[in-house]
Amino acid sequence: MPVSLADLNAMDRTGFVAALGEVFEHAPWVAKAAYVRRPFASGSALHNALVEVVAAQTPGQITRFLNGHPDLVGRPSPGSPLTAHSAAEQKGAGLDAITAAEAARLSLWNRRYREKFGFPFIICVRRHGKDSIFAEFERRLARQPDVELRAALDEIGRISALRLVTTLCGPGMPKVYGKVSTHLLDNSRGLPAAGVPVQLLALSAEGSAQLVAEAITNHDGRPDAPLIDARPIPIGWYELRFFLGRHFARDVPLSGPPFLDMVPVRFNVAEPEGHYHIPLLFTPWSYSTYRGS
Amino acid sequence: MPVSLADLNAMDRTGFVAALGEVFEHAPWVAKAAYVRRPFASGSALHNALVEVVAAQTPGQITRFLNGHPDLVGRPSPGSPLTAHSAAEQKGAGLDAITAAEAARLSLWNRRYREKFGFPFIICVRRHGKDSIFAEFERRLARQPDVELRAALDEIGRISALRLVTTLCGPGMPKVYGKVSTHLLDNSRGLPAAGVPVQLLALSAEGSAQLVAEAITNHDGRPDAPLIDARPIPIGWYELRFFLGRHFARDVPLSGPPFLDMVPVRFNVAEPEGHYHIPLLFTPWSYSTYRGS
Amino acid sequence: MPVSLADLNAMDRTGFVAALGEVFEHAPWVAKAAYVRRPFASGSALHNALVEVVAAQTPGQITRFLNGHPDLVGRPSPGSPLTAHSAAEQKGAGLDAITAAEAARLSLWNRRYREKFGFPFIICVRRHGKDSIFAEFERRLARQPDVELRAALDEIGRISALRLVTTLCGPGMPKVYGKVSTHLLDNSRGLPAAGVPVQLLALSAEGSAQLVAEAITNHDGRPDAPLIDARPIPIGWYELRFFLGRHFARDVPLSGPPFLDMVPVRFNVAEPEGHYHIPLLFTPWSYSTYRGS
Amino acid sequence: MPVSLADLNAMDRTGFVAALGEVFEHAPWVAKAAYVRRPFASGSALHNALVEVVAAQTPGQITRFLNGHPDLVGRPSPGSPLTAHSAAEQKGAGLDAITAAEAARLSLWNRRYREKFGFPFIICVRRHGKDSIFAEFERRLARQPDVELRAALDEIGRISALRLVTTLCGPGMPKVYGKVSTHLLDNSRGLPAAGVPVQLLALSAEGSAQLVAEAITNHDGRPDAPLIDARPIPIGWYELRFFLGRHFARDVPLSGPPFLDMVPVRFNVAEPEGHYHIPLLFTPWSYSTYRGS
Repeated sequence: MPVSLADLNAMDRTGFVAALGEVFEHAPWVAKAAYVRRPFASGSALHNALVEVVAAQTPGQITRFLNGHPDLVGRPSPGSPLTAHSAAEQKGAGLDAITAAEAARLSLWNRRYREKFGFPFIICVRRHGKDSIFAEFERRLARQPDVELRAALDEIGRISALRLVTTLCGPGMPKVYGKVSTHLLDNSRGLPAAGVPVQLLALSAEGSAQLVAEAITNHDGRPDAPLIDARPIPIGWYELRFFLGRHFARDVPLSGPPFLDMVPVRFNVAEPEGHYHIPLLFTPWSYSTYRGS
Repeated sequence: MPVSLADLNAMDRTGFVAALGEVFEHAPWVAKAAYVRRPFASGSALHNALVEVVAAQTPGQITRFLNGHPDLVGRPSPGSPLTAHSAAEQKGAGLDAITAAEAARLSLWNRRYREKFGFPFIICVRRHGKDSIFAEFERRLARQPDVELRAALDEIGRISALRLVTTLCGPGMPKVYGKVSTHLLDNSRGLPAAGVPVQLLALSAEGSAQLVAEAITNHDGRPDAPLIDARPIPIGWYELRFFLGRHFARDVPLSGPPFLDMVPVRFNVAEPEGHYHIPLLFTPWSYSTYRGS
Repeated sequence: MPVSLADLNAMDRTGFVAALGEVFEHAPWVAKAAYVRRPFASGSALHNALVEVVAAQTPGQITRFLNGHPDLVGRPSPGSPLTAHSAAEQKGAGLDAITAAEAARLSLWNRRYREKFGFPFIICVRRHGKDSIFAEFERRLARQPDVELRAALDEIGRISALRLVTTLCGPGMPKVYGKVSTHLLDNSRGLPAAGVPVQLLALSAEGSAQLVAEAITNHDGRPDAPLIDARPIPIGWYELRFFLGRHFARDVPLSGPPFLDMVPVRFNVAEPEGHYHIPLLFTPWSYSTYRGS
Repeated sequence: MPVSLADLNAMDRTGFVAALGEVFEHAPWVAKAAYVRRPFASGSALHNALVEVVAAQTPGQITRFLNGHPDLVGRPSPGSPLTAHSAAEQKGAGLDAITAAEAARLSLWNRRYREKFGFPFIICVRRHGKDSIFAEFERRLARQPDVELRAALDEIGRISALRLVTTLCGPGMPKVYGKVSTHLLDNSRGLPAAGVPVQLLALSAEGSAQLVAEAITNHDGRPDAPLIDARPIPIGWYELRFFLGRHFARDVPLSGPPFLDMVPVRFNVAEPEGHYHIPLLFTPWSYSTYRGS
């Protein structure tokens, strides 16, 4: 259950550590050491303090800390040392549903990575789709150890920032970026298109499509809320589907069968913290789309 | 083997009838009766003469003529009375690959149709996809007999016109309409996009997609030839796929991964004899498409 | 000097009438009669009360009231009975700068209108440009008297609502509609175009263009404030001018002289209380614009 | 009167020189020397031969040849040594109608140029508007003599190629490039817009606009002929004007006054031999335009 920053600032050390314990995987000592720097003026200040605790450790301590993180696993085993956070994150990225071949590849890469770097492969999976995790893994396996050590700590910074936001509540929380939004305009009538169903699907390299969000446009031609908001958009390919058929049938007199019905728009998300505003301007015989703002 | 109009005009009656025999299904008497009206100035004049022979028959003769046409069959049987024309046409419309349930539906409808109208369901299948054939069949089953009789003769006019064009060659042939073309412009550079692969797929109501044509754009941003040309476009839904990824990788310096790769454009063909010119104007971050001319 | 609704509610009758006196042209009795209905919960409630006072008058009183309004005059005369409100409004519509021929036409129409209807031509000039005032005048001159009487009272309702908003201040004021806004997106880079000068000009039928507003786009590609906001947009033709040359010179590497520099967009405002959002999506070689939302 | 290449090849030297005499300004000896290389297989072969005669001269002869060209003059004087070609060309570029201040500037620059380079400023005026001639003049005045000598000969090559095309007729003539074309599509109806008046105007830096061409779109939404074709487009700024009002009034049912009427599109021509295809895709509430192909 989330606690407020005010409550957190007022806690004793035991409560404080219990509240923040798993923000850093299997490392309650991070919260314990940051405790003395209370009170924290904001969630960002707290996160900075926690990150500085990690950065102040000796190389040996840091390696042990990194080794407290789990391997990236496809198929969880009964004895899996995943925290609840890790399990939820890996499931969100689709790592709970990979093929045997993919699991074998991960297993091989996990072993090679540990052999080369001396700690497990750590990645903020909430910023990735399955395809980009595999691509990142391959890319990072080839790196120099010192570069990769910094990359691992950066990923832990990202992971812990996102965990902190789900751990805390109330004022003072940092804004989490990442947004997919849209807007439908019927250019043949000069008006927003209301009542149009919209879907957002995540595409995989193998061609599958998984529904991420769906909505109906309101009187201003927009979903009432962004399709994705205040969370990283997992890197990867997406398809927006605009179901214009209903709009034409109801609002636009056509002399024959419609030329357009479901309009698919495929796009790549490369910046998980970006704002992907992707409008559709259409008529019964044309449409245009773009990355807007 | 196609013959020229000049050769046809010079033939004796036997040769003339042999050459045109199956333009009207199992009805060489149509060509035989038109023979006396030689010479024909054009393919259209010849077709008009043939159609007028049919129209001049008594109602009883017309019913017998219609009954010379085969049922619309999904799965050909060894004893099938299909002419080579019919077999090729039905295969083109995908009627050689329907499910058992669809075959059963066709069988039921064929029986109902014959019971109601006294002749088999006749449709120019080269103007239709499987979905539109089923839709037409259902629609026409509900009609008044006199309306449907005229519809059947209209379809025979369309079938025979298309067969005539494959039967004849050389000058004087009527133009056969029906065209799908495209044009790719890179608006970020003000230039046509050359070397871009383009595919045209026919979509079925069940979600399958069948490749109809593919091409690479030339220096003017167009396939060297239209994707479909000089034949009816079977009524139905299509998807154009523009593979922009290669263009961006080769011709446009991007600072990161591309926002767009394969751009799909879905559209409906309602006029088989129409020209569907569907350009794509694009930049690395936007595109628009429309029915052009 | 504007007064708040709270202050107005607390005034005695003399102060109340002084504060609202010229909201209705030369008719302080309207405010006087509405005084008893204090306190007013909102500006709209106050306006409704004032309008109901007018509506409750006898036909003779209403005619006298209408006759308290000035003729629409091009060139003000020293003895002109214009209130400060009227003078400012007529100047805003460009009626202080008309040609002798136009003044003569107005003079003739004023006389014909009074002869036909028994009161002067009344129009909410803040909702019109010079061209639309002439067009309206001509149109209304041709009307039936009872229709035109209602039209005159409607115009007085619009005039007094706008005057009330400038007379009052603070909370409880009704929103005044009418907005012209824009948004610049550089589709070749997938980003808003910042630092681009934008002008809005009002066009006259004779071809002249008068600057109405200008702004520079901010980091989101928009002027910091709408070009017109919270006031009626005078009916008529406008031109937006987007000065893209500076943007290309600064932000977009071009291999030669720019294809586009100042992009003009001409449009007609028919709904003075409407929101005309008119974005420009552009690349160095293309642009599109539309009425958005 | 133009002669054919065949006739030219058959002429004696006197006739040959008379026919081609003024293709090179005041230099019949160029044609005279090229005569021996007859017959010419094409207009391009002939032009190459003529240019090679010039290139084979000594530096002193070339300087004398260049000095046979007239100054660029705004206001023709009675004793002006302009050939008919030169007079027509300079008039086409608007040099017959410049202000006294511009004439004074030209006069000053002409003197400076002769002093610096030893020959007059030579430019193919058919490839320029008045503004670009002034810009070129200023730019070239600042150059090194050897660079500028080559530039002068290049310009003579361009001038003579264009003169040759007007001097000859019949087959074998080189194609002269330079085209402005357009295409109107009503995207709200998915059809070309026929019967729409289109104008092309040349804009000057001072804001004046001169009509260059006008046309009405045909059933395919295009003028029957390009607005400019087979001649260089003078470098400079242009405005296309699309008069959509009539189209909306006649072909598109609108519920109120049109949002768009005359749509202006301003663009710069930097490549006189280029093809500027500038379509307009529009609806009653939107439009887009681009450099196409």
